[in-house]
Amino acid sequence: MDQNCIFCKIIAGDIPSTKVYEDEDMLAFRDINPQAKVHVLVVPKSHFAALAEMDAAQAELVKKCLVKIPAIAESLGLKNGYRLIVNQGEDAGQTVHHLHIHIIGRESMGEKML
Amino acid sequence: MDQNCIFCKIIAGDIPSTKVYEDEDMLAFRDINPQAKVHVLVVPKSHFAALAEMDAAQAELVKKCLVKIPAIAESLGLKNGYRLIVNQGEDAGQTVHHLHIHIIGRESMGEKML
Repeated sequence: MDQNCIFCKIIAGDIPSTKVYEDEDMLAFRDINPQAKVHVLVVPKSHFAALAEMDAAQAELVKKCLVKIPAIAESLGLKNGYRLIVNQGEDAGQTVHHLHIHIIGRESMGEKML
Repeated sequence: MDQNCIFCKIIAGDIPSTKVYEDEDMLAFRDINPQAKVHVLVVPKSHFAALAEMDAAQAELVKKCLVKIPAIAESLGLKNGYRLIVNQGEDAGQTVHHLHIHIIGRESMGEKML
């Protein structure tokens, strides 16, 4: 846990969140500034900012998140699809330096991604 | 290999692509309809459409892609950040049913993601 990380504080329960899924490896909770009808963040329960920094155990955690995400998405009602986004670094608009996977769903997003 | 899959044909070399990285597990190539200055697709060399469908070996391949992506992004000049996008299903605009990770980079994308 990083004492200055808002997501570590959410994982620890020191900051409230609207949880949609939790297990020993990850936490999924509603984004407080949703950009679509469904906007959930999935965070591994290990603090690291970037894919470039992760060790083997952390990579395994990210894999577990990706394996679990379809079930989380289904529980959110996204049976016809969803978009996953991982922002890495300043140019991508990464504002919290704890790796997180956005699950974004709305009726239809089309092919345009930016 | 799926005989009807355009990405499988690209992996096999039957359809040309502008490759930026390749190893035994994955291929990374330029998107033919780029939505940003840098737009590359990373595809595991195993045909499956969705995270929901993947087996353990395929999940491991996706993990390997995520471990390798920082080096690919750096080779593309994206030292200040990049966005990864995985579209799953019709509502997300997934047009090719072979799992692929978009690497998207431009000067600054801001926090808005849609």
